[in-house]
Amino acid sequence: MTNLVETVQDNLSFVLNKPHDVSFVQQPKPTLESPHDVIIAINYTGICGSDVHYWHSGAIGSYVLKKPMVLGHESAGTIISVGSKVKTLQVGDRVAIEPGTPCRRCEECRAGFYNLCLDMKFAATPPYGGTLTGFYAAPEDFCYKLPPHVTQKEGALVEPLAVAVHMVKQARIQPGQNVVVMGAGPVGLLCCAVAKAFGASKIVSVDIQPSRTSFAIDFAATHTFIPEHTSAEENAARLIREVDLGPGADVVIDASGAESSIQTSIHTLRRGGVFVQGGMGKPDINFPILALCIKEVTVKGSFRYNSGDYKLAIELVATGKVNVKNLITNIVSFHEAEQAFKDVKNGKGIKYLIAGPNEKL
Amino acid sequence: MTNLVETVQDNLSFVLNKPHDVSFVQQPKPTLESPHDVIIAINYTGICGSDVHYWHSGAIGSYVLKKPMVLGHESAGTIISVGSKVKTLQVGDRVAIEPGTPCRRCEECRAGFYNLCLDMKFAATPPYGGTLTGFYAAPEDFCYKLPPHVTQKEGALVEPLAVAVHMVKQARIQPGQNVVVMGAGPVGLLCCAVAKAFGASKIVSVDIQPSRTSFAIDFAATHTFIPEHTSAEENAARLIREVDLGPGADVVIDASGAESSIQTSIHTLRRGGVFVQGGMGKPDINFPILALCIKEVTVKGSFRYNSGDYKLAIELVATGKVNVKNLITNIVSFHEAEQAFKDVKNGKGIKYLIAGPNEKL
Amino acid sequence: MTNLVETVQDNLSFVLNKPHDVSFVQQPKPTLESPHDVIIAINYTGICGSDVHYWHSGAIGSYVLKKPMVLGHESAGTIISVGSKVKTLQVGDRVAIEPGTPCRRCEECRAGFYNLCLDMKFAATPPYGGTLTGFYAAPEDFCYKLPPHVTQKEGALVEPLAVAVHMVKQARIQPGQNVVVMGAGPVGLLCCAVAKAFGASKIVSVDIQPSRTSFAIDFAATHTFIPEHTSAEENAARLIREVDLGPGADVVIDASGAESSIQTSIHTLRRGGVFVQGGMGKPDINFPILALCIKEVTVKGSFRYNSGDYKLAIELVATGKVNVKNLITNIVSFHEAEQAFKDVKNGKGIKYLIAGPNEKL
Amino acid sequence: MTNLVETVQDNLSFVLNKPHDVSFVQQPKPTLESPHDVIIAINYTGICGSDVHYWHSGAIGSYVLKKPMVLGHESAGTIISVGSKVKTLQVGDRVAIEPGTPCRRCEECRAGFYNLCLDMKFAATPPYGGTLTGFYAAPEDFCYKLPPHVTQKEGALVEPLAVAVHMVKQARIQPGQNVVVMGAGPVGLLCCAVAKAFGASKIVSVDIQPSRTSFAIDFAATHTFIPEHTSAEENAARLIREVDLGPGADVVIDASGAESSIQTSIHTLRRGGVFVQGGMGKPDINFPILALCIKEVTVKGSFRYNSGDYKLAIELVATGKVNVKNLITNIVSFHEAEQAFKDVKNGKGIKYLIAGPNEKL
Repeated sequence: MTNLVETVQDNLSFVLNKPHDVSFVQQPKPTLESPHDVIIAINYTGICGSDVHYWHSGAIGSYVLKKPMVLGHESAGTIISVGSKVKTLQVGDRVAIEPGTPCRRCEECRAGFYNLCLDMKFAATPPYGGTLTGFYAAPEDFCYKLPPHVTQKEGALVEPLAVAVHMVKQARIQPGQNVVVMGAGPVGLLCCAVAKAFGASKIVSVDIQPSRTSFAIDFAATHTFIPEHTSAEENAARLIREVDLGPGADVVIDASGAESSIQTSIHTLRRGGVFVQGGMGKPDINFPILALCIKEVTVKGSFRYNSGDYKLAIELVATGKVNVKNLITNIVSFHEAEQAFKDVKNGKGIKYLIAGPNEKL
Repeated sequence: MTNLVETVQDNLSFVLNKPHDVSFVQQPKPTLESPHDVIIAINYTGICGSDVHYWHSGAIGSYVLKKPMVLGHESAGTIISVGSKVKTLQVGDRVAIEPGTPCRRCEECRAGFYNLCLDMKFAATPPYGGTLTGFYAAPEDFCYKLPPHVTQKEGALVEPLAVAVHMVKQARIQPGQNVVVMGAGPVGLLCCAVAKAFGASKIVSVDIQPSRTSFAIDFAATHTFIPEHTSAEENAARLIREVDLGPGADVVIDASGAESSIQTSIHTLRRGGVFVQGGMGKPDINFPILALCIKEVTVKGSFRYNSGDYKLAIELVATGKVNVKNLITNIVSFHEAEQAFKDVKNGKGIKYLIAGPNEKL
Repeated sequence: MTNLVETVQDNLSFVLNKPHDVSFVQQPKPTLESPHDVIIAINYTGICGSDVHYWHSGAIGSYVLKKPMVLGHESAGTIISVGSKVKTLQVGDRVAIEPGTPCRRCEECRAGFYNLCLDMKFAATPPYGGTLTGFYAAPEDFCYKLPPHVTQKEGALVEPLAVAVHMVKQARIQPGQNVVVMGAGPVGLLCCAVAKAFGASKIVSVDIQPSRTSFAIDFAATHTFIPEHTSAEENAARLIREVDLGPGADVVIDASGAESSIQTSIHTLRRGGVFVQGGMGKPDINFPILALCIKEVTVKGSFRYNSGDYKLAIELVATGKVNVKNLITNIVSFHEAEQAFKDVKNGKGIKYLIAGPNEKL
Repeated sequence: MTNLVETVQDNLSFVLNKPHDVSFVQQPKPTLESPHDVIIAINYTGICGSDVHYWHSGAIGSYVLKKPMVLGHESAGTIISVGSKVKTLQVGDRVAIEPGTPCRRCEECRAGFYNLCLDMKFAATPPYGGTLTGFYAAPEDFCYKLPPHVTQKEGALVEPLAVAVHMVKQARIQPGQNVVVMGAGPVGLLCCAVAKAFGASKIVSVDIQPSRTSFAIDFAATHTFIPEHTSAEENAARLIREVDLGPGADVVIDASGAESSIQTSIHTLRRGGVFVQGGMGKPDINFPILALCIKEVTVKGSFRYNSGDYKLAIELVATGKVNVKNLITNIVSFHEAEQAFKDVKNGKGIKYLIAGPNEKL
């Protein structure tokens, strides 16, 4: 393993030049800029909706692609080089990579909310390059060693799992609570599984596609619900009745970003319930503010992840409480990356993994 | 004082028969139905926006007037009779009345959220009668003795002050924080004063009427802002710039219920900020959900008040931290009640008080 | 079931006259004093350490036996009569009984901390009689219907389980945390099981008796530790090392009341850790206050249970997350109650149940 | 100002060689080791009890003086040099210095609890040198610009004020609460003032020296209490009675470290009250653990300060809410440092400031 560096002469990367225009480019290998950094040979990278969105439209909100950028941020890899001050990792260690490095100095960082750092350098978020590449540099404390029995493929799933962990933590789910999760894409499915690990009683997966809710019930949900083209109040009333949620759900998590789901969420909550907005969709939507006020609902946004989320995500994988393997429906080689993006855009599979350029399938 | 009962032969009440149709009616005097109850001779009652709304339209949301109902719920009075198990109050005590009695047995009540009790009996909320009457019965623990130097007129203001206390508590305002309050009606003004008592640094009163923000600056605000007919983002950006809020407000409280105010609130918050919705307006509004998500904003509804709110409200009046007297712009006799409702509907004054039917002005 | 009342002519009770002096006494059957009350035929009652303590010494702290008192407070039974305002229970329903009725009116009750109510009427706490009797009256909202597949024997274990639930809630255990539980008596064992249901990773049961820690590992713990007669620091250091707790435990719960356990608890915690004191022993002990200060430890007392604890306890039994059946080592008939107390005093078994006087074994 | 560096040819420092052995030593001037650092010319430094303790005994707990160390950590100064990445400070800025630099990478740092960082480099805590020196280097984000009207003398008091802010935050003091502060030294006095700024109603300063409690009442307390040589229970009962605390104090803060004070604290609390341990004294004390358990008291250690504490401390000084000037009883020149330490050891004055070696008095 330690001579991996010598045998690899290049750093092939999957680069988004502009919307719909990608290419494979040899980039300079990263170097240890800080004595706290490590260099990682990427083994597997999952495709995230945001990757597809950049590929398709070149921008997410105020983040706009202005020069070619390596895609990808859901990765696991193998350490090939460590800086002089690195203490806990060594060459050969297999790690999940937390793909954003905060400034560590602003008020948010110092208060523990580093996901809100304005100077965050986040992989595959313009102008910072991503992890669909051969070698990647990251600080020691943003690389999490995988336990021996956790594979690198599972390791690539730690990123979306950490997103779900953060959402469930924002919801402060307690054992015995009834939880509704809007959307049964990868993050919604993982929210169901994390909610179960947090002790939730009823876990209702909601999606307009029956194939997805079927998958959810096999994966982690206890109940499913398919909304109809009717009002949010009516969908909420039917959901509460069919799943027997009594005065309403304790917690609703939106992993869809869909306007109708968010409206239904508020109407589904009991008085004093908690709603977490994790899905990103339209910037402005029609929202039942009076119901929120009268029921004293708490709403919390959830953005990426911060302290402890990766650690818990790996723990949930290691203990088998969340079976991320079951989400991996497709694994492709590095040179098939563009086709994989097309497939994901077309709704194929649940989670695609792309092998690193130096990884044999 | 103890022979007050004997000298009063009636229980004149101000009754809403149907929208816009009120009358003065002699009603039976209340009796001590529970050994924990007291009977109070009403001294002063403030007019609340919700009273005016019932008078004008006969309904608020799902609460619909179906039979004649006594109006009023912001009252202070004097104890004239106490039940056999009453320990802390005696005849002659001057009290502020918390006008809602919860069931004490449901999950919400037992968990301390009695304001969310579904079986709440709230004064002047159909079908329960209010306090614009001569005599009113209430449980001992919902009557709060006024300190000697606090007047009954001030006592009538404790109700809206408790509303503001609850909103500020929901916002968890900490010393040093910058707070924006949308709306400079009585509750918005009181929110400014309570925020100051909680140690807020900058307190920005926002209203479209310059006369109201002028009042706010005299009353408790440190800064004011008058929004223009432009986008919420632009108003928020200008507010942040003019008041020098740096990365944005720590807390925004909406006491207006206005759609544009609520939109501006979210855009005015810093990342990780807190928004409290206390004002009631349109049930559904256009809402910047993506900004909420990305900034990890916390939103909390605020509905009435619960444990400890009245106690703190009286403490704030007693210590002079909130000068409720300054809000009382008009005091009228009981037989002028209808004209007072018309005045309030027309936007006259800040807070009208109506004397009890047995009170000499 | 409904004619149970007619067939039973008495209300045999197990009465503590003075320390070590018990007798079987016919007492008046309870009546429905409040329309919110129900009457319950007791099926099974567990013996608690506090029952044994009263039997043995006549007092716990400031609670002193001054007149004969029925013992017992861990009971499940069957409804035989309901008051006129009871809505959710009917004759024949099988229930776990929460044995303390608070005043519902003091600040603690109204704030949701009814376990701290000074006017609490708690079964088998002088001067209030307990549940080792034929028939017992309780308010509807303190009787919890058992799901069909949960037996009355399990129902009698809900009380100590609710104690453990409250302790774990006080500790705010989160998934992935490492938890140490001092003491492997019934409540300590149940704490281990509840901690597991809350998602704890390592759960270390600590006791000086190897037979108890062996039981714990079969029941719910992941690790065990047997302290030696050495300093608390040394025991803590060895515990951390043997169980591989890294910087120390996230949470330690004391269910022993033993001085040395409490000392070891504080030294076992990581910086920022949480300690919950649930066990009751000597009123004053030698305590490592400087370590608490420097590590910014949070300590919380835990006393009985309050809002939501019984509900969650029943949920944990119903879902099989806590297998209370395994704690029941002995079941005796009502007339064997005194011998059962002697056995418990002598450390026999884990949990003794006493059948109600009208219950056939 | 910018040529200040050139005019000063030395970096005179006050060095503790071993217990009771101090000397004035020329040390190398600090350089900008990181582009995020600044160099500060020290203007004033307060003497803290811990400085005196090191001077007197050479150790605090596990921190043991092994080689000569510059004393002092309560300082304000003037920026004379800034690193290349410094954005918010410039030469000539007057700053309060937060004297501990955490690693920014451990779990505690990343979670916002950097005061618990094991790799903290804290001024005048072995082996790290302190601020009783001419020039000192610190990271930009640990230097807080003083508002124009706040003097450098006041700036030196920000450090102990931040200690008090952290203690009050740990106590989560809310407006209207009754607070008892044990000990009327500088930190105890500042706790009284901060508690007032947080809206506390009654603030009871407790000390065995009447001269100190007299000072406290002038400074910020509303009541005082002088304990007698009797039991903690009796002192607590008398305190509650004399100050009319009803069911007990909402919050007690110990800034004394004295065993009897800590015991009295627990007995003075109401059920559900909060106790914060900030004073450091004997490592192990006799402690009323049963009262803690039964009353469900929360105890929190308080150690130094973290995110937001310095910012709030400066805000409290700038707004006049805490009048730190009144604590400064003695200001001496740098060469009088040793005598000042002797005076403080002998209990003279409240707070001594030592001018920087280049500061004219």
